[in-house]
Amino acid sequence: MGIISNNEIKRIKSLQQKKFRDESGLFVVEGEKMVEEALHSRFKVEKVCRRDEIGEEAMKRISALSSPSPVLAVVQKPDDVYVGDASELAVMLSKGGLYLGLDTIRDPGNLGTILRIADWFGIDAVFAARDTVDVFNPKVVQATMGAVFRVRMHYVDLPEVSRMVLELGGKVYGTFLDGRNMYACELSDGVQSPAMVVIGNESEGISDEMASLVSDRLYIPPYPADSPGSESLNAAIATAITVAEFRRRML
Amino acid sequence: MGIISNNEIKRIKSLQQKKFRDESGLFVVEGEKMVEEALHSRFKVEKVCRRDEIGEEAMKRISALSSPSPVLAVVQKPDDVYVGDASELAVMLSKGGLYLGLDTIRDPGNLGTILRIADWFGIDAVFAARDTVDVFNPKVVQATMGAVFRVRMHYVDLPEVSRMVLELGGKVYGTFLDGRNMYACELSDGVQSPAMVVIGNESEGISDEMASLVSDRLYIPPYPADSPGSESLNAAIATAITVAEFRRRML
Repeated sequence: MGIISNNEIKRIKSLQQKKFRDESGLFVVEGEKMVEEALHSRFKVEKVCRRDEIGEEAMKRISALSSPSPVLAVVQKPDDVYVGDASELAVMLSKGGLYLGLDTIRDPGNLGTILRIADWFGIDAVFAARDTVDVFNPKVVQATMGAVFRVRMHYVDLPEVSRMVLELGGKVYGTFLDGRNMYACELSDGVQSPAMVVIGNESEGISDEMASLVSDRLYIPPYPADSPGSESLNAAIATAITVAEFRRRML
Repeated sequence: MGIISNNEIKRIKSLQQKKFRDESGLFVVEGEKMVEEALHSRFKVEKVCRRDEIGEEAMKRISALSSPSPVLAVVQKPDDVYVGDASELAVMLSKGGLYLGLDTIRDPGNLGTILRIADWFGIDAVFAARDTVDVFNPKVVQATMGAVFRVRMHYVDLPEVSRMVLELGGKVYGTFLDGRNMYACELSDGVQSPAMVVIGNESEGISDEMASLVSDRLYIPPYPADSPGSESLNAAIATAITVAEFRRRML
């Protein structure tokens, strides 16, 4: 089974590290379903490796999974993930839309879950603070269950994007323990001007800088309304409930 | 710092394993906040170990965390966690209420997240199929952020409990891709008769047996309503959105 060279194995394996993904502009997806989705997405698939062709040993070496699946693909990152140009962002935001703003999500599983939520609820794009975990990290890619191929994701200067949203007459939302009952608030449909829901970091919540740019502080009421309840819901859960409520009103 | 014996260290450490938790009826919580919550809960705290008193080395040995916190407590499991008696359950359910039914959750982090949701939304009790991960597993305990001390949790024969709910004139809900738009459905407030929301396993969803006992199949509409979207939202996310909707209508 000499169909894949040692150098090629090393190259694919290196893509488990961000440094090499950044240098090459490539990342890896694994599993029949994920590879199928990649092939039918806007992403360019550079190469597909099948266990039947390269053998089980080689598959084990290139896989990031503890039990390698029968197929793996090397995929090109789209070139719009690191948007540096403010004018491009301004064009996008001026069309309105409902966006998520990730105020630094560090856990790969959480980012994967958030992308699935964004996919389900048709979020126009996810803006991530630059310190957010890399969406092309193999753990994130697998946790998205394919949403990585459908959701637009941009690493940006998040406070700058928030200011742009506000300057366009849009709204920036965040959930806070001292926010207003979400069900009693007006929630933008993002049609006339953009709306962004900010999601705080897993342990530190929304940063002071981003909190100062939130125009509408929301609160998800516990039940009963006056119960002490948990300290808080986790970031992905609060996001899901909030975004579901935005969309419920638009159905 | 000979204030804690080797045998005591071994005993506390053994509680990381389910076998020893079951034998002793004890479990461990770590961290200032968690220990504080334990002390103010209905749970009996058997012992509190502080780093200041037992020394850093001993603390490292008894802790399940990679960075041990300054305090750890040994806590008694409440004796109502393994409810074997159908008549006790019948009494509980006959009072009505909104319940969750975990159709085998295996991931400790997921169970922790689900307990936080149950806590936030005042769920009357969580019924878990017996194969669900142990709620007193240290990873689950820590992931609950204290909800473990407030939410009633019972390991049960889940199909049996579902039948009891139905026999009492109650409803058993589950989310399915072919369910009915949740926002267009009547949702029980659990006042006259009990209502239970079933949450499926992470990879296999709701089992055939439990699916046959669901009286109301719900669907969380994606946006736009006809979008292909992800295959599904994850179990904890779907639960959060569903339970939030039940409670929104009761506010």
